[in-house]
Amino acid sequence: MKEKGLLIVLSGPSGVGKGTVRKEIFAQPDTAFEYSISMTTRSPRAGEVNGVDYFFKTREEFEELIRQDKLLEYAEFVGNYYGTPVDYVRETLDRGKDVFLEIEVQGARQVREKFPDGLFIFLVPPSLSELKNRIVTRGTETEDIINNRMSAAKEEIEMMNLYDYVVENDQIDLACERIKSIVVAEHCRRERVEPKYKKMLEVE
Amino acid sequence: MKEKGLLIVLSGPSGVGKGTVRKEIFAQPDTAFEYSISMTTRSPRAGEVNGVDYFFKTREEFEELIRQDKLLEYAEFVGNYYGTPVDYVRETLDRGKDVFLEIEVQGARQVREKFPDGLFIFLVPPSLSELKNRIVTRGTETEDIINNRMSAAKEEIEMMNLYDYVVENDQIDLACERIKSIVVAEHCRRERVEPKYKKMLEVE
Repeated sequence: MKEKGLLIVLSGPSGVGKGTVRKEIFAQPDTAFEYSISMTTRSPRAGEVNGVDYFFKTREEFEELIRQDKLLEYAEFVGNYYGTPVDYVRETLDRGKDVFLEIEVQGARQVREKFPDGLFIFLVPPSLSELKNRIVTRGTETEDIINNRMSAAKEEIEMMNLYDYVVENDQIDLACERIKSIVVAEHCRRERVEPKYKKMLEVE
Repeated sequence: MKEKGLLIVLSGPSGVGKGTVRKEIFAQPDTAFEYSISMTTRSPRAGEVNGVDYFFKTREEFEELIRQDKLLEYAEFVGNYYGTPVDYVRETLDRGKDVFLEIEVQGARQVREKFPDGLFIFLVPPSLSELKNRIVTRGTETEDIINNRMSAAKEEIEMMNLYDYVVENDQIDLACERIKSIVVAEHCRRERVEPKYKKMLEVE
């Protein structure tokens, strides 16, 4: 009676520090989930290793994978494709291991459609919760700056809608701890655990 | 903009070790929630201190509190009343602190009615997940023993229904860690966090 792994999706507005948090999580020896390495058509930077940092592909290879529906999600940024190979994700989940994706918000939206019961975590900048303070000090800011901040904040808050959890990235170690706690807690959710016990009773 | 505390309810079948787990949680220095001390009409045992282990009351005092609706939940066991004073719970939650109750399953049912958005955690004996093994070895057991185990397990699984989380008490320290992770995760749930951010935007 093998339980399937959880699909954990970490996303958030660009610049919030998703990559830093993800690296810290996987630097910790007690992290029990597996990182799904992204695929990209951009060139490797100095020190980047194929199959560690990314799977580096040509544009033709990538577009062939799109055609074959082999990508869980993908997007194009500044002329390069980025995506998540679906086979690795499915195989790892089937082995009962949790899989961790760190992706952009538009990618997260695609994943939600395919894995509605995934675990979606939205990382927010601490600036969002300081919004009130910043509004209070409005006397010292121009109208334009305030309006920009307000509309950026509104967009970020609207993005949250898709997610199960919101984690503030005020301190990297705290953010990592919260994310790992969320994974532990999700494994204890009654909706996930109860069917397992009910199945046990059916045996024989 | 003070956020209300969470009401955390730990319960489970009798003999599962709720008290031991609760004591271990509150022995840990980083535990950030407050323990709601129960009230009882039974006599203090050697070493028990009023206001630490229990609030010790006479039967008349207890029944007066029942009449005044001052108990969040109560029950009678072997001729003694046990209950949770409601004022302490409400005041602590209003101060923004999480409150932790460790109570029997019938009490948890009463609390669920009054605090539907509380955090209900069901502690299960590890024996429950070993059920399959025990059934497999049925050849060595009498029919009666097997039937008793099966019906006990069925009852325990049916009790889960009311709860948000199920924690296995296979090891006290692991059970404590899971419970604390659940509390951390619940504070990050989007449904709890999003309104706070939305309110910020409304300010001014």
